Amino acid sequence: MREQGDAFHLAIPAYNLEEAEDFYVRQLGCKLARRYADRITLDFFGDQLVCHLTEEPAAPRPDVALYPRHFGVTFREAADFDAVHHLCVQRKIEVFRERATRFEGLVEVHQTFVLRDPSDNLIEFKHYADPRMMY
Amino acid sequence: MREQGDAFHLAIPAYNLEEAEDFYVRQLGCKLARRYADRITLDFFGDQLVCHLTEEPAAPRPDVALYPRHFGVTFREAADFDAVHHLCVQRKIEVFRERATRFEGLVEVHQTFVLRDPSDNLIEFKHYADPRMMY
Amino acid sequence: MREQGDAFHLAIPAYNLEEAEDFYVRQLGCKLARRYADRITLDFFGDQLVCHLTEEPAAPRPDVALYPRHFGVTFREAADFDAVHHLCVQRKIEVFRERATRFEGLVEVHQTFVLRDPSDNLIEFKHYADPRMMY
Amino acid sequence: MREQGDAFHLAIPAYNLEEAEDFYVRQLGCKLARRYADRITLDFFGDQLVCHLTEEPAAPRPDVALYPRHFGVTFREAADFDAVHHLCVQRKIEVFRERATRFEGLVEVHQTFVLRDPSDNLIEFKHYADPRMMY
Amino acid sequence: MREQGDAFHLAIPAYNLEEAEDFYVRQLGCKLARRYADRITLDFFGDQLVCHLTEEPAAPRPDVALYPRHFGVTFREAADFDAVHHLCVQRKIEVFRERATRFEGLVEVHQTFVLRDPSDNLIEFKHYADPRMMY
Amino acid sequence: MREQGDAFHLAIPAYNLEEAEDFYVRQLGCKLARRYADRITLDFFGDQLVCHLTEEPAAPRPDVALYPRHFGVTFREAADFDAVHHLCVQRKIEVFRERATRFEGLVEVHQTFVLRDPSDNLIEFKHYADPRMMY
Amino acid sequence: MREQGDAFHLAIPAYNLEEAEDFYVRQLGCKLARRYADRITLDFFGDQLVCHLTEEPAAPRPDVALYPRHFGVTFREAADFDAVHHLCVQRKIEVFRERATRFEGLVEVHQTFVLRDPSDNLIEFKHYADPRMMY
Amino acid sequence: MREQGDAFHLAIPAYNLEEAEDFYVRQLGCKLARRYADRITLDFFGDQLVCHLTEEPAAPRPDVALYPRHFGVTFREAADFDAVHHLCVQRKIEVFRERATRFEGLVEVHQTFVLRDPSDNLIEFKHYADPRMMY
Repeated sequence: MREQGDAFHLAIPAYNLEEAEDFYVRQLGCKLARRYADRITLDFFGDQLVCHLTEEPAAPRPDVALYPRHFGVTFREAADFDAVHHLCVQRKIEVFRERATRFEGLVEVHQTFVLRDPSDNLIEFKHYADPRMMY
Repeated sequence: MREQGDAFHLAIPAYNLEEAEDFYVRQLGCKLARRYADRITLDFFGDQLVCHLTEEPAAPRPDVALYPRHFGVTFREAADFDAVHHLCVQRKIEVFRERATRFEGLVEVHQTFVLRDPSDNLIEFKHYADPRMMY
Repeated sequence: MREQGDAFHLAIPAYNLEEAEDFYVRQLGCKLARRYADRITLDFFGDQLVCHLTEEPAAPRPDVALYPRHFGVTFREAADFDAVHHLCVQRKIEVFRERATRFEGLVEVHQTFVLRDPSDNLIEFKHYADPRMMY
Repeated sequence: MREQGDAFHLAIPAYNLEEAEDFYVRQLGCKLARRYADRITLDFFGDQLVCHLTEEPAAPRPDVALYPRHFGVTFREAADFDAVHHLCVQRKIEVFRERATRFEGLVEVHQTFVLRDPSDNLIEFKHYADPRMMY
Repeated sequence: MREQGDAFHLAIPAYNLEEAEDFYVRQLGCKLARRYADRITLDFFGDQLVCHLTEEPAAPRPDVALYPRHFGVTFREAADFDAVHHLCVQRKIEVFRERATRFEGLVEVHQTFVLRDPSDNLIEFKHYADPRMMY
Repeated sequence: MREQGDAFHLAIPAYNLEEAEDFYVRQLGCKLARRYADRITLDFFGDQLVCHLTEEPAAPRPDVALYPRHFGVTFREAADFDAVHHLCVQRKIEVFRERATRFEGLVEVHQTFVLRDPSDNLIEFKHYADPRMMY
Repeated sequence: MREQGDAFHLAIPAYNLEEAEDFYVRQLGCKLARRYADRITLDFFGDQLVCHLTEEPAAPRPDVALYPRHFGVTFREAADFDAVHHLCVQRKIEVFRERATRFEGLVEVHQTFVLRDPSDNLIEFKHYADPRMMY
Repeated sequence: MREQGDAFHLAIPAYNLEEAEDFYVRQLGCKLARRYADRITLDFFGDQLVCHLTEEPAAPRPDVALYPRHFGVTFREAADFDAVHHLCVQRKIEVFRERATRFEGLVEVHQTFVLRDPSDNLIEFKHYADPRMMY
């Protein structure tokens, strides 16, 4: 059971903090909590996301794959999932993987779409028909 | 504001699913939600953690550093932070970085310790004196 | 994250405490918490509003504008926004700016209407289609 | 009764948006929600604060007084009041009125201190011994 | 603001404790908390109701009127009001005043019906269209 | 289980509405919700109390007894009970029955004191050592 | 009133811990909390279920009956009842008693279906039209 | 995650419904929800307990053992565990197994005591030092 008031926190690399702030705050609608020379901290859907300034890998960039490393939010209510997807459409945020239904016909069925931030981190939003499958 | 019932989810690599389950369930006290051939899903302090089976990098393993990539829980109550630290001591879970106080004298002051899972993922537990600094 | 039980408080001028009480309690349906010689305190939709007795500016009254100074409530549920609007219609409370939809086609789209209290304070009620835009 | 999820919102003048962001985000620890050319919106202790760019009054600035117009937060728990006061001390935020106890010997007794933002808005933090006096 | 966990308590006369228990527990579906020689205590919709054994007034019984003395529950959700009314219909509990809509066309509009317990206490159930009128 | 948001409501006689408002709002610190020619409605510790104007009984007034008819609040936390008692002491509200401990040595042990409003209604505040005895 | 954070716990016999884990975790979607040589502990819909390894009764197995001994969950929302039933259908979990409506025409009307675990424990899921009948 | 408002329910045998009601309601302080000819339903610490009338086994009664079958409540707060234990002492409820600390020196350390109801059902109350061990 998650204690009321605890927060998950996740630290990820950012090649450029300006771009990270633009993506998460101005595009995705997260809230900027603090800004330092080497990192920014965000209120990302109620949890803490920290973008640490990191040297960009030399070109060509490596391939980006959803597995094994990505993060995101699993919404309890379909309306909240729809709202975030709608925001991405209206603000023309480029998607890495289009909205789709996975595992149709199984109990694990859920909707999902994936974003890619300017530092190649992948963010997945999900909604499960059966909330007990959220874990 | 985090909606009641939403969950953060994080996908991480695991070189060996048996070891991952042993570490997260039997050591750290997380709950196993589902087990598949290529991944396990966990209830990690109320959020979803998914360990994806991934080929182990060839030896020698790369250096592991806390930045830019780690995850963890920031507790609202000091007692909950203490309980998890106590569990690690009692169960002799090896720590990557010992319990310490960071940013003493600043508003951002917090306690922290870091674990390393069998697949080199780093997990940080924190507690801030001022809960508004959690973000 | 707003702590459970904390209250925002706002102090505003009132040219006449009787009129203020009439407007906020008998018209808008707020609750009178305390009455002093120089002020009244109200439970305004769960937050504290304090009307301080203040000398009325000499006629002619200055123009009243929505920016930069007004206050109000942003409802999470459209039904609550509708209920307050309905109350204003039924009780024939004069509106300063009619109910309207702002920022149509943008993520920030919301419904809004504005009241003017007897001391020229402006009160805006809002409802955002996407609750993450409430901030 | 405040509905879960509703937010109070307050619009105030700001002579300079950079200074406003510096004061509220970097000093007071509020979260930046959105930034526009003519305003910034903040998550101010869980409610919405909007700073609208406004022409600064010609010098000399008018006197600033706590009545009739100020805003702030009334904390339910003394520890939260103390934490914000501690933050102001540690970050050397100038206070407009020092921490003091008002109405000693009365039921309305409370602790209070007042800040002044760069645009002469006054912000009062309070904690009442008897939580029923919060309104 | 009602503190989580507090209970209202109401003590009322009962001419016969067996009849009181039959009415409140077996008919209305309340829960019996404790039974003493001179009273029973009930969990009445989450609050405490205590029926004190009292001598019945000599016949003829005095007239019973809704004002100034009655008690009951005001439901936040119409469905809960409907459920209690449905229970009264199905269990053929005699009503003192039939289900009706009061104050139609006003903000205070609400649905209501009134029961009479075996000791002539009147119980009103209500549901307001605008929840802010519950007080 | 009390549904979140429901309110108990209680209608009581008042010989004089001015006196009732003075007692409940200015003395006891309840909130005035609405005022009509023949009644006032109050937010009494989170529940609804309605004082109906009623003709005062001819002198001499009948004896007032705690049983079988009184009402009040049972606090979950001792601190809340203490706060209300403290308010009565500081504001010199006359008590009908002094603060005392009842049922010492039994599981039902609780603290209690009783007030009498200007219309002879008795109000009891209680706190049980064992919260399960609240019902 | 159930205190926030308390858990019911139930210890039941299991003839085979592997089968028990398969049934509760992989079939029913419960979470495995801990595994010991002689028992497993489960997060069963938010409560604790402990399966203790027990010798299987000699064949032929005794008849299994719903009364007097079974356990389960009574859902507040019909959608949650439907979701669990849907899961059983999709995963082809054998039911002991088919989904049915009981006590039609009475206030106690509810939907129900019953499962049988590999150790002959019976699990009933229910949903009452009137939530006050849940007890 | 336990949904707010769901209830666990447990059906157990009772040799005598009068004795069961006496034990659970008058001794343990549970609330009687409903009484039928063949069963009683109880609000047992917020969950539903149903005692079904069952023929008593012929003497001599079988041995009663804690494993594999018992039920109870695991309290989140030590004070609530203490309160129930205190109730048993004050009301001289016979214990089946005295209060003791189990698994000292392990993370699973908890306090516990066990009651036996008149129909040989065993009820265990527990409190874990580390709340994550509740499952």
